[in-house]
Formats: sequence, C-alpha cells, structure tokens
Amino acid sequence: MFEILSLKGGIDNLDSFFCDGINCGLREDSKQGDLAFIRSDKVCNIAAVYTTNRFQAAPIKYALRYGKLFEGNFILVNAKNANAMTGKKGVEDIEEILSHIPSSINPKNSIMSSTGVIGYRLPKDKIINGLKRFDFNAKNSDRAARAIMTTDSFKKELCFRVTIDDKESFYIAAIAKGAGMINPAMATMLCFITTDAKVPKEDMQELLKEAVDLSFNRISVDGDTSTNDSVFLMANGSSGVYDKEAFKEALNRITFELAMMILRDGEGATKVVAFEVVGAKNDNEAKIAATNLSNSLLVKTALFGEDPNWGRIASTIGASNIECDEEKLKIFYDDLLIYSKDYPELDKEREEKAHQIMKKESFKIRCDLGVGDGEFVAYGCDLSYEYVKINAEYRT
Amino acid sequence: MFEILSLKGGIDNLDSFFCDGINCGLREDSKQGDLAFIRSDKVCNIAAVYTTNRFQAAPIKYALRYGKLFEGNFILVNAKNANAMTGKKGVEDIEEILSHIPSSINPKNSIMSSTGVIGYRLPKDKIINGLKRFDFNAKNSDRAARAIMTTDSFKKELCFRVTIDDKESFYIAAIAKGAGMINPAMATMLCFITTDAKVPKEDMQELLKEAVDLSFNRISVDGDTSTNDSVFLMANGSSGVYDKEAFKEALNRITFELAMMILRDGEGATKVVAFEVVGAKNDNEAKIAATNLSNSLLVKTALFGEDPNWGRIASTIGASNIECDEEKLKIFYDDLLIYSKDYPELDKEREEKAHQIMKKESFKIRCDLGVGDGEFVAYGCDLSYEYVKINAEYRT
Repeated sequence: MFEILSLKGGIDNLDSFFCDGINCGLREDSKQGDLAFIRSDKVCNIAAVYTTNRFQAAPIKYALRYGKLFEGNFILVNAKNANAMTGKKGVEDIEEILSHIPSSINPKNSIMSSTGVIGYRLPKDKIINGLKRFDFNAKNSDRAARAIMTTDSFKKELCFRVTIDDKESFYIAAIAKGAGMINPAMATMLCFITTDAKVPKEDMQELLKEAVDLSFNRISVDGDTSTNDSVFLMANGSSGVYDKEAFKEALNRITFELAMMILRDGEGATKVVAFEVVGAKNDNEAKIAATNLSNSLLVKTALFGEDPNWGRIASTIGASNIECDEEKLKIFYDDLLIYSKDYPELDKEREEKAHQIMKKESFKIRCDLGVGDGEFVAYGCDLSYEYVKINAEYRT
Repeated sequence: MFEILSLKGGIDNLDSFFCDGINCGLREDSKQGDLAFIRSDKVCNIAAVYTTNRFQAAPIKYALRYGKLFEGNFILVNAKNANAMTGKKGVEDIEEILSHIPSSINPKNSIMSSTGVIGYRLPKDKIINGLKRFDFNAKNSDRAARAIMTTDSFKKELCFRVTIDDKESFYIAAIAKGAGMINPAMATMLCFITTDAKVPKEDMQELLKEAVDLSFNRISVDGDTSTNDSVFLMANGSSGVYDKEAFKEALNRITFELAMMILRDGEGATKVVAFEVVGAKNDNEAKIAATNLSNSLLVKTALFGEDPNWGRIASTIGASNIECDEEKLKIFYDDLLIYSKDYPELDKEREEKAHQIMKKESFKIRCDLGVGDGEFVAYGCDLSYEYVKINAEYRT
C-alpha cells in the first residue's frame, strides 16, 4: 500500500538536493534567470533519456561519455543557447565550464544541459562568471525552474511525497521546460527529476524509459524533434526507502503531469486534446494514427477553430497507410458518436453538441478503427495565430 | 526537334474539347461557378493518378470501375462537397447524376471528380439541374477553371502548343485546383489535362505517373493528404500527331508549372522554397529529408519570419532518421554557404545576406549531406497567420 501526496514547490522539498537559478547575461531580461544548477549532497544514480535527433547537441555528446546510466551529483543548465552543431569545440567548452565548479562541493561526473538557438558557441565567460556567483547550498526550485524556460509562459515544477504502508516515505520532485517543438519523439524539452528514494541501479533506466514513453513521447506541439531533448532521473537514496511499484507510479505520474503542463503551454495553444485510437490492427498502427492526428496541421487548425469537422480526422487516418475501412470506422468527441457508416451526416443537433465539447480546454477524440485490438493515446494541442507569431519571430 | 509555345487561355485552345463552369447552387457566392464539365468530341484514352489516402472518395471508387486507364470522353467536376466517407450511397449518387448526361453527346464511361467538405452526401438535385443547364458545345476554360476552385485565390489554367520539326503540332492544356492540404503525397488537388496528341495507350500511364512524381508529388503546403486528389490525362488523338519526347517534355512542364502555381497559392503562403537535398546516402534518404524540410512547421514559420535560422534546417535533417553527420553537412541559401563545420557561427554580414535571399518570393535551400550521391528536390511554402485563419474558419 502506498499513498502519493502532491506538495507545493519542487526540488526544494528534498533535504538532500540543492538548486538555484540566476541571470548570467544570456537573457536580456535580467529579471529572469538563464543559468541553473541542480546538485545532490550524495552521489546519485543518474539515468538519462536523450533525443533521437542525429545531430545531438554538445551537452548530450559530453554526458554520453558517462553512458546513459552513471554516478554523478551535479547538472548545470543554461537557456538561450543550445550548444548544438558546434562540433568538438562545443564539447570542449563544456569541459572548460565544468572545470570551474568548486571542488568544495565534491562534483562527480558533472554534466550540462542546454536549450536555445542552434549553431552558436556558448558564451563561456558569462557562464563561468555565473557559475562562480552561485550559492551551492541554495534551495530555490522556483528560480531554477524559471531560469531554464525558453518560450514557456509558466514554470513547470512538481513534487510528490510517497508514503509506503503509512510509515516510511520518499520524495520525488522535478522541474521541466517545454513549449514548442514538442513531438512524440520528445522535442525541445528538458526535464530534471530528483528523488531521495533508494532506486537500485538496475531499475533506473527501465523505469525512466517507460515513464518517458507514457508521457513526453506522447505529446506533440508541432511535430519537430530537437537536438537537445533530455530527461534525467537523479536518485540519491538518502531516504533509504524504495518500493518499486510505488516509485514507478510516482515517476509515471510526475512525468505525465509535466508532459500535460508542457502541452498546455504549447506555443500559442488554447486547448489540449487526447487522440485515442482503438481497434487498430495492432498497437503500432494505433500509434501511427494517433501520432498523425496529433501532428496534422488541418486537425490542429480545426481544433483552434472549434469546428467539428470530423472529415479531417477521417482523412488523416486514411492518409496514415494503416489498415482501416470507412464502413468500420467510428469517431467520437468525448462520448458523442460523430461518425459511423450509419449516419455520416452531421445534423444540427449533434453539430452543436460537438461544438460544445470542442469549446472545452481539454477533451478526447476517440477513433475506433474496428479492425483489431491495437490501442494508443497521443496528446496534442491546437494551432493558433500565436504559434505562427512566436515561431516567425523567435530569434529576433 | 520540337518547340513548346505557351498560349493564352486553357482547354478552349483545343478544337476537339469542350468545357464550361456554372453555379448550380453549391456555392453561396452565385457569381462563382461550382460545377464544371470537360468533354471530348472523340473517345479519349484517359489515364488517372489518385490519392494514396485509404478513404478514397466516392468519385474515385466510381471511376476505378474502369481502371486507371480507360476509354471515355466526359468528366463532371463539382466544388464544395468531396463526396467522401459517404459509403455506397455516395457512389450510387454519382451513378444517378451521370445518368442525366444527354445521350446526344454520346457519353462514354463518364466520371465525376469532387472536392470540398467530407462526410455529406452530394446535393444530387442541384447538380442534376445544373447538368441540364450546360451548353455542351461551350468552350469556356476560364469558367471551368474558376468553378473547380475551393480556397484557391486565383484560377490555374495553362495551354502549350507543341510543334514537331517545324511542321506538325499538337496542343496540351490543363486546369487545376489546389491550395491547402497539398503534400508530397498529392493532397486536395485536382488536375485535368487534355491533349489532341495521339498518345498510345501504353505510354499514357507511364508518362502521367512520371509527370505527377516530378510535380504534384514534390509540393507541400501542410503535410496532409486528402481523400479526393486526382490527376487526369485525356488524350483524344485528334491532331494525329505524337512524338514521345516532345509530349513527355510538354506534359512534365505543364504539371510542374501547375504545381508551382498551386504552391504559390498555398493557403496564406507568401513565398515558395525549393528544398534541394544532395549528397544523401541514396535518393530515398534525400527524399525523406527534403520532404521533412518542406513539411516542418518550424522551418515554415522561420521562412515566414524571413529568419535565417539554419538551426531549424539542421535539426529537421537530424530528426529524419537518415545518414548524416554534422561534420559533413553544408547548408546553402541559394549560393550562400550558411553552415559548414568550418564556420558554424553566422556573422552579421552573412546573416544580412541570408536575410536578403529570404526576402525573395522564391529561393533555394540546398543541403549537402556529404555522405553519398542521393538527390531530391521538394518544394514548399511558408506558414503564415493567414493559413491558420483560413483553416480555422474553413467550414464556416
């Protein structure tokens, strides 16, 4: 038996972790930070899941020298510059920056994590000067969460306390950044999960991968994948407590909730939609259809227009090159049947009902392909004028 | 030796073809037509290329009863209603409508072609009444081209006269509609090509397929494929003239020019960009990269913003799951080298030059992957506020 309680704040709830965010001059608005650190007072098991983009950014190349599962205690995070497509020099810059972490905090296998514009070297000196200004005993999850934001309009931070059998407990807390470029293959998003649970090494990678597959890999803002996406799980075991089922549930929940926060904050998004595909030939075909729906520009603009134009849903499924049949297909908006072969025409009453559903901030579009048992849910958002504005003007 | 001369007008240049467009009440604006016909006074060889969408619309199902290559002389085209996802009744409706073509014009294997909203039965009576009002001896390519438009902002019609060895000649003329939902897999677009060349049956399908692959299958407005896309080639042999090389060149040129017109008229598009990928492992990998570039929302919005943010180009290639290497990649805007491993940072001067190139109505983005000999060119357009507006409000 276990209980998961949501707490205020984020990483600052954990005694054994420290974090803070400052402005070191990368961002013009000096009120918002652009450099953050997260460290543990004990060496952690750290597991990572990285972008599938072939042009992995320098921070990922650097971190991979330790493998996807390693022992470490320090992560430095910057905004505004992705340190991607910067070649060997990009990796050397990280090496130099991290050499300035004071030995007094016993850094072990320190790494960096970056997002921002591609193709520019890191402003090393600014970052090194910033690093020197940190109070490494600070516990300011709020400032850390704000410092790592790019086009995010709100900070993403969560903390759960998990109590096992009404007696012992551990914490799990995370900060994340997202917005834009979010795709089923996990695009420009960073997530740092810390826990004092005593997670054994052999569970780390398996549980993190599963959690990412159920959360960040199911959301889409615009169908692009970035060079920098990374999710880290730092477990330092300070609580001495571990229960695999409880930890798995807490980890899945924290990543899913953060993924929904990222989606809700998708650039210019006004609503979040679950695309549930059932009755596909197999799970893989369900995934293809659900992912295509969440990425379709025509579906996304129809969502923004709150137009119950199910034809775009059907057309997208038909274009997915998967087994489907218009005689077997059923489309629902929440529980409202909106298409089946028996009444293909949308009458005024159902149209009005569908329109009411679409006005909600979140709802479900369910497609039953009727040809098998395959299932998948992907989460998407609408495409608004604001998206175009943000992305046309991003660098300027 | 042959010469291709571009003429004013469209199908009306051909003595042996007739066409017209009228308003039969499908479109509210009664000044614009919504129903068109194209017919030949002789039975033609007709070849067709249809959408790869699994939910092929009723008119495609109906036409496929004659196969993709058949003899016929009459095509009826309507706007505003796609007759898609309408089941068997959708096909029966076509049968009934076409039965009203007067026998005086000797219809043979008549077919329909439709675009518009998905999921509604055709307003049969309006179309039948419209059909009865046609003057089947009219030669009004302009009205036919306008009647088939949906969100198109200008009509698409072209005609070439092809002269062989300075003496005999044939004509090739076409009307098309596009705008929106245009994708490398040929989305909501219709194209009707007529010719009096004496094209042998065995060349019809081969030449049409090649022409479509080089034109409509290389353009992308938004990455979606529709239920209704169709390209028809009607050859009635009236001129008695045929030269395979000349015909092939004229057919390729007319489809390519129409494809560029469609792209330029992409919903809200302000510029057309050629994405040329060279040096890929093979042609297929080049095609994947070029197509992904032309479909990427982040690339499309950067084009609209005229932002020389080559990082989005690189990131999209990296996300394409093809062989590539940041040490070997080179990116050019027209002839301006904008990225190679030797100078990754965009200085002010090159940035300004790149910006000037991006201000043009059309330019080329060339990516040399440097890993092989594969090549492909895809054509895309930018994504503007206007695209979102058009598609959010399409049905209303």
